[in-house]
Amino acid sequence: MTQFQTRNPAYAQDVRESFARQGFMAHLGARLTAVSPGKVTIELPVSASLSQQHGFVHAGATTAVVDSACGYATLTLMPPHSEVLTIEFKVNFLAPAQGVKLIATGRVLKPGRTVNVCQGEVFGINETGEQKRCAIMTATILCR
Amino acid sequence: MTQFQTRNPAYAQDVRESFARQGFMAHLGARLTAVSPGKVTIELPVSASLSQQHGFVHAGATTAVVDSACGYATLTLMPPHSEVLTIEFKVNFLAPAQGVKLIATGRVLKPGRTVNVCQGEVFGINETGEQKRCAIMTATILCR
Amino acid sequence: MTQFQTRNPAYAQDVRESFARQGFMAHLGARLTAVSPGKVTIELPVSASLSQQHGFVHAGATTAVVDSACGYATLTLMPPHSEVLTIEFKVNFLAPAQGVKLIATGRVLKPGRTVNVCQGEVFGINETGEQKRCAIMTATILCR
Amino acid sequence: MTQFQTRNPAYAQDVRESFARQGFMAHLGARLTAVSPGKVTIELPVSASLSQQHGFVHAGATTAVVDSACGYATLTLMPPHSEVLTIEFKVNFLAPAQGVKLIATGRVLKPGRTVNVCQGEVFGINETGEQKRCAIMTATILCR
Repeated sequence: MTQFQTRNPAYAQDVRESFARQGFMAHLGARLTAVSPGKVTIELPVSASLSQQHGFVHAGATTAVVDSACGYATLTLMPPHSEVLTIEFKVNFLAPAQGVKLIATGRVLKPGRTVNVCQGEVFGINETGEQKRCAIMTATILCR
Repeated sequence: MTQFQTRNPAYAQDVRESFARQGFMAHLGARLTAVSPGKVTIELPVSASLSQQHGFVHAGATTAVVDSACGYATLTLMPPHSEVLTIEFKVNFLAPAQGVKLIATGRVLKPGRTVNVCQGEVFGINETGEQKRCAIMTATILCR
Repeated sequence: MTQFQTRNPAYAQDVRESFARQGFMAHLGARLTAVSPGKVTIELPVSASLSQQHGFVHAGATTAVVDSACGYATLTLMPPHSEVLTIEFKVNFLAPAQGVKLIATGRVLKPGRTVNVCQGEVFGINETGEQKRCAIMTATILCR
Repeated sequence: MTQFQTRNPAYAQDVRESFARQGFMAHLGARLTAVSPGKVTIELPVSASLSQQHGFVHAGATTAVVDSACGYATLTLMPPHSEVLTIEFKVNFLAPAQGVKLIATGRVLKPGRTVNVCQGEVFGINETGEQKRCAIMTATILCR
């Protein structure tokens, strides 16, 4: 696993403040649970308001939390006052997203001054704590 | 533009009933506005509860509506009692998603018995009715 | 269809010279057949040296020509002396790539100063001239 | 790392025979160098006939070898007489593909009876044996 050096001593606080401005994360009920250089974790309690037609978590909700995780993973490595922007992402859905909560992790794979490549994954956690990977993301994040 | 024949006389009603079971669409405030063979349109009024940190619509919300549009576009062409499932999608974000509402359209490009390929696009509509394309999706939808 | 203005009067010659430096296009037997602002077409005669295990054209060969078409479509819109670089692409394979030749077209969907989004498609042409779409690409092309 | 059980005692021989039928792999000069359950490695000596306009290996050649690696990684886990088919892939290019050879590895991430998800990566190896990751792939492989 690559170890990254951050160029922003306040990276964790900056990520938390930016996350708090994402009205959509609050609307979903998502929580930022871990921030380290190049890696961010977001948890999403599962509820009926996130469901698709079969009762599983909607692909869009799953995607939202792992996209935020990848974007903020990138932000941890950027100079202060940077902004990150998702250019594109691809998600493969490996299993139905279900359980009591989802845990989404975003990791920077290839940092760059402007173009960053991240990999994300989402696990569904059931009542006994078992986890099953339900989605993977590859995202290209622009920094400016 | 390809013209598709549906094999399900009740395709529009089936799509509307399935959409109504998607708790997430209601939670977003999304509305199903058009259903025809191989093509579905969903509108999403823009509100602060959908925002990312800069005030634009979060990529996850944009993705959610165009994913549902692609899935239901596929369902219109399937035999009665079919189920659709997103295997994977890729989204490119072309411009900030903003305005008074987003209009997401999903179209079947290549129908198949099990594997279907759809293309989606999302436009932001401003107060004077001008529209700007903000995202495109390519999705692989499994039918069973 | 969007009409693009080029900022390089010698765009067609520049594309042709760059194409001629791609040893891989010569090795495949690919030919640059049309260059216009924001759109480039490349033809690939089908031969056994391009085959995968079932006798169809290998996905990698199909991808190579449509990637070059997308990259050069971007180059037509760039200032003189620009360089283009593929950041990422996604390809969906819709049908076996076969026939007497493949025709790959790349089009710029969203031009930008640094980040450009292109869409490509590949058709297989049979002996009687019928064409069948076998692949679509979405590519993000960096310009510098 | 997941350990996979193969259902085909002759999986390695079957992969080698199928690879030998890929005219395109021979045309590129690619060699199958390792086959194990759920994982396949292909090496590609770098030559001018694989180049793009700047002298690096063309994205299409890089893609071709990692696509074959992913397809054959899937085949190792399938029953005898199965066929694999790439539905779609996405590739991110992380660094110029260069060196004396490329090493492409495909791994099955999520096996399935019909739909399989693989991850691939490509490294460029220089004259002193140093390796640098130049591309990653996520591929959806259909089996029948």
